[in-house]
Amino acid sequence: MQAARSVEIVEVGPRDGYQGIAPFLPTETKIRLLQQLFDAGLRRIEIGSFVSSTAVPQLRDTREVLAACARLNGLEPQVLVPSERRGRDAVDAGARRLVFVLSVTEAHNRNNVRRHPLESAQEYERLIAALPSGIAIRLDIATAFDCPFTGRVPQSETLALLDRLVPARPDAEICLCDTTGRADPQHVETLLASCMTRFPAVAAFALHAHDTYGLGLANAHAAFRKGVRIFDASIGGLGGCPFAPGATGNVATEDLVWMFERMGIATGVDLDALVPVAREAASLPGGLPGGRVRDAITARPPACAAGAPAS
Amino acid sequence: MQAARSVEIVEVGPRDGYQGIAPFLPTETKIRLLQQLFDAGLRRIEIGSFVSSTAVPQLRDTREVLAACARLNGLEPQVLVPSERRGRDAVDAGARRLVFVLSVTEAHNRNNVRRHPLESAQEYERLIAALPSGIAIRLDIATAFDCPFTGRVPQSETLALLDRLVPARPDAEICLCDTTGRADPQHVETLLASCMTRFPAVAAFALHAHDTYGLGLANAHAAFRKGVRIFDASIGGLGGCPFAPGATGNVATEDLVWMFERMGIATGVDLDALVPVAREAASLPGGLPGGRVRDAITARPPACAAGAPAS
Repeated sequence: MQAARSVEIVEVGPRDGYQGIAPFLPTETKIRLLQQLFDAGLRRIEIGSFVSSTAVPQLRDTREVLAACARLNGLEPQVLVPSERRGRDAVDAGARRLVFVLSVTEAHNRNNVRRHPLESAQEYERLIAALPSGIAIRLDIATAFDCPFTGRVPQSETLALLDRLVPARPDAEICLCDTTGRADPQHVETLLASCMTRFPAVAAFALHAHDTYGLGLANAHAAFRKGVRIFDASIGGLGGCPFAPGATGNVATEDLVWMFERMGIATGVDLDALVPVAREAASLPGGLPGGRVRDAITARPPACAAGAPAS
Repeated sequence: MQAARSVEIVEVGPRDGYQGIAPFLPTETKIRLLQQLFDAGLRRIEIGSFVSSTAVPQLRDTREVLAACARLNGLEPQVLVPSERRGRDAVDAGARRLVFVLSVTEAHNRNNVRRHPLESAQEYERLIAALPSGIAIRLDIATAFDCPFTGRVPQSETLALLDRLVPARPDAEICLCDTTGRADPQHVETLLASCMTRFPAVAAFALHAHDTYGLGLANAHAAFRKGVRIFDASIGGLGGCPFAPGATGNVATEDLVWMFERMGIATGVDLDALVPVAREAASLPGGLPGGRVRDAITARPPACAAGAPAS
């Protein structure tokens, strides 16, 4: 269990950030960036997906990247799997933490995986039942707060889906995802408080924030105030928003690290080591970056124009 | 006094945003944009400065803009004045709310106005003493949290300066300014709580947040949780950061309105009317925009790539 004065950052850029990049990122580049993220202190990293290479060609080399993880002593890689079958493949390939995604809203789940959320819940249950012991599970609940198709998601819907899912694996790490970035700090507080009350046996809740509306860090801090200690983020804010072309998506790892470190909360990440990686990630051809800290942190104190008060 | 379910946004773009723009914005353009901001619902607007036109050439037409305010029934314009003399000029020209800026740290105050903070405090006192009745005062405390030259500002320094300033005009609206954007939600909460305890007679505290490190809305929400109901913001996030070229500065008005309205807190601003103004402001030649909502709010629900789960 997390101490109150530290948080765990889960770096999802190599999956959630890269997957939208069209030009194929050479495997060596993926591995090098992974090494740099590790060197900067990140230990939880979502390194890829076991999905069809036709569906997500960028991540067709996940097996190789996963194999490279073995050299990084202390790294806890996780891979996304959409099904029991892919989950078995991932475990056979050496994966020890699997990520399963489903959406609260039918509209979004069908758009993503062409199934009703309860069909996805069944697939999740099959996956869980098929796993050997010792495999950690991360469950990503997309549209936990807001749906790009139907708007604000009533809390009762999110809780009802969790009612179904939690018993299958109470020790799963359950991540509430702000898919659209339209969650607000009040909503985050309220939903998380309800989740923690209703599901006291859940090992840990996490937050996956989007900064599309500038609320990424505000929502992360709201979750922190409610006891969340695990936060997804993407290096350089990579990922974009499929619902608002040109807008940002995932909260940037360097921004989240900045906020927590400023508040004296340990992240385990060395920001000076991370920012160069963030700059490279943000410059990847075809990438959709976000974040503010990268540009801010070059600050040197120049002279202000006298007479033009900077307040 | 503000009801708990509404906030007041003070639009500072026309002063704090425009002043850094090199190409002169025609007075007619300034007045037109002012009209549009007013039409969108903004009532507190910082429309310019009474300063030497050599120092801030962009704002040399403040008198004309102020005169145009008379047509906007319900508008409460405010103008920045650096001295007693300029304050008198402003009042003579029809201003009814004056803004005075000084910094907690000597380094920043000297850089801005070439004086020790206590010299500026004396100037403030002279200004207050010289005013006729009926003139409202806004006091901007720059580097209340953090200084670009000396880093984090100890709370004791900020409080000590306020000890000196508050008695001169207890009914002044006192705005704590996050000059560098390096304040964090914890710091905002702590300092504001201290201010409200120490200065119960202060009519109202306000927050001027910068989004340079992505914390603009997080800090605004922190202040809101502590009872602040008045927030500076700049249309299109105009203003930039003199300390980090290329970085953003002022929190964007449209972002702040988005956040509060999402939480059911009334701002009086119509976001649909505001966003086009924000887009124009963000496109002003030589402008340094910020903000996220402008780009996000074009969201339409397209089909996601099937198989590439959007969490």
